[in-house]
Amino acid sequence: MNASLFGLLEAAADCSLHGVLNGFQGLAEDRVTPLPRWFVEEHRRASHTPGAWLGAGRWPAGEADFERFAGNLERRGIGGLAIIGGNGTMWACRELERAARRSGYDLRVVGIPKTVDNDLAGTDHAPGFGSAARFVAALVRDVGRDLQSVKNFESVRILETMGRNVGWLAMSAGLLKERPEDPPHLIYIPERPFDEEVFLREVEETHRRLGYALAVVSEGLTPHETEAGLKAPILGGVSRELAGMVNDRLDLPARGELLGMGQRAFTLAVSERDRQEARMLGEAAAYRLRSGESGVMLALARKPGSRYAVEVWDVPFDEVAGAERALPAEWVPDSPAAVPEGFRRWLAPLAGEDLAAYPPNLAE
Amino acid sequence: MNASLFGLLEAAADCSLHGVLNGFQGLAEDRVTPLPRWFVEEHRRASHTPGAWLGAGRWPAGEADFERFAGNLERRGIGGLAIIGGNGTMWACRELERAARRSGYDLRVVGIPKTVDNDLAGTDHAPGFGSAARFVAALVRDVGRDLQSVKNFESVRILETMGRNVGWLAMSAGLLKERPEDPPHLIYIPERPFDEEVFLREVEETHRRLGYALAVVSEGLTPHETEAGLKAPILGGVSRELAGMVNDRLDLPARGELLGMGQRAFTLAVSERDRQEARMLGEAAAYRLRSGESGVMLALARKPGSRYAVEVWDVPFDEVAGAERALPAEWVPDSPAAVPEGFRRWLAPLAGEDLAAYPPNLAE
Repeated sequence: MNASLFGLLEAAADCSLHGVLNGFQGLAEDRVTPLPRWFVEEHRRASHTPGAWLGAGRWPAGEADFERFAGNLERRGIGGLAIIGGNGTMWACRELERAARRSGYDLRVVGIPKTVDNDLAGTDHAPGFGSAARFVAALVRDVGRDLQSVKNFESVRILETMGRNVGWLAMSAGLLKERPEDPPHLIYIPERPFDEEVFLREVEETHRRLGYALAVVSEGLTPHETEAGLKAPILGGVSRELAGMVNDRLDLPARGELLGMGQRAFTLAVSERDRQEARMLGEAAAYRLRSGESGVMLALARKPGSRYAVEVWDVPFDEVAGAERALPAEWVPDSPAAVPEGFRRWLAPLAGEDLAAYPPNLAE
Repeated sequence: MNASLFGLLEAAADCSLHGVLNGFQGLAEDRVTPLPRWFVEEHRRASHTPGAWLGAGRWPAGEADFERFAGNLERRGIGGLAIIGGNGTMWACRELERAARRSGYDLRVVGIPKTVDNDLAGTDHAPGFGSAARFVAALVRDVGRDLQSVKNFESVRILETMGRNVGWLAMSAGLLKERPEDPPHLIYIPERPFDEEVFLREVEETHRRLGYALAVVSEGLTPHETEAGLKAPILGGVSRELAGMVNDRLDLPARGELLGMGQRAFTLAVSERDRQEARMLGEAAAYRLRSGESGVMLALARKPGSRYAVEVWDVPFDEVAGAERALPAEWVPDSPAAVPEGFRRWLAPLAGEDLAAYPPNLAE
């Protein structure tokens, strides 16, 4: 988020710049502040900070709100607005632009994608995701090796990734899996039906075969349909519930662990390519606004060829507003033990090609 | 652990080398395997892996066991043994050496310190701690900035570090705190009495002043004495219990989060100096065994002067076996809001001088 902000500020350094504090909440409360040049200069060294320099906010906006937001911006003489965010943000961008147009106010609005969940439509991937995937892939590899070392006294771990409704981050845990016996042994994603009994059988079978089992679950994992009807999805903490089941039903020492806020914040795991792309999209947003464009989210399109390269495309808000992009069907294998090779090839340049699997332990 | 192992193997590459699998459990089960030269060569590139190449183990050993362990080693013609571990391991090293001597077997035993908790006596710090402290310091800085950005809708986080009985890792969370208003705002360690009511008042006061509060707690935090007597310590999960109390009693949206296994395993957060020192101690162990020394743990002693430098000392097992090193009294401030400057100066070279605090947010 901050890398995109600084790309934008630098590419628009000769303009009169204002920042909206706390997102749409700040628009609602008319908290808009000039961004003097010293701010850009002084904070350049810290463009890699996590969080949001301008703060985040939540605002359950309705149609009337957007007209008020537009009015606030018009009074300040704002000509263009770039907004950084995900699905919901792009929906709000569209509504804001429409509300401005209805009142005859020529406000240009451009969206910059950002989400660790990677559920944004219209773009090959969203900034933030590559770094989160790097965190998840490397941490699961490392915690897997740690578990293998201590399997004589602790043999099952269930690690929980972010991803409310989609499995992009959970599947990223398999990036560095080379051999079938490497952890993670099982990955459970919302795109595939989940059955607790099948889960227990799969953990038990893995443990019997290898002496330990590492499973990764997405926080938005949907439980299976029971005869009594559809269960409510368990959100946040599913890893601990499943670890409890493994303890109770399989009598195996299990630990559930959320990978936590580090997924979206830990700077030691930032993917340098991710940061550069975020910055590039911020710069592109500045150029689009200068040239009078509006009504689009900037997207990353992968160029054909074996060498990784992207270009910036424009996607109308209509195509992304509210849409949710799950893992495509060809990357949802039937088995939780499989990690599609195509997905790994797609992910590697985003998370960083320097990551590698470990050679086998001597004590296996 | 693996860095020390490879330092040892490389410095003893011309010897006949064996590895004991799964620590003292492997000694009990006589699982000792030759380590051919190709093993050292092939795994050199992976000396940074977490966990233990030779596996870890748990064995509740008594005096009779050590005589059997010594017998197993003598039958194989082992002349020297280096063992990597913490307090309990150094106790076992001493017992094993004594048992061998009682039976007239000239077994040399040298201990290599390793613990993320840093509770080993006799050494300035233990390998593993610097990397764990780097993980904790950087992650708490980053999650703190993340929290500051979202404080309008989530304003209290309680982060839980490792450290069963000592506060070294929890206090490390304060390494990058520059101003009183920077997170972490409060650090609770086992070395200071803990009172839940005082804790709630301190969180509430911080939240009132700054609009958010980030507290760090050590997993081994000891609850206060009540009139009914001494409460049992809450271990592992204290962060979630405290977050629940903040939710219920203060009516503030709070999240408890364990920093998890990444503290001891995440290679993206390894302190390069820590890795080099671990390797150096492995090499030193090989030299000690070659020259016939025995009965000592190798320790890191800091040289005087402003530039960081260490040398390797020998400490008799008697001085470290079973001893537990808490934070010294001068680094246990009266207030959980304080981080002693002397502690920060001591810690910075271990965790890495490249880490820095962030400039202030615009939305504060």
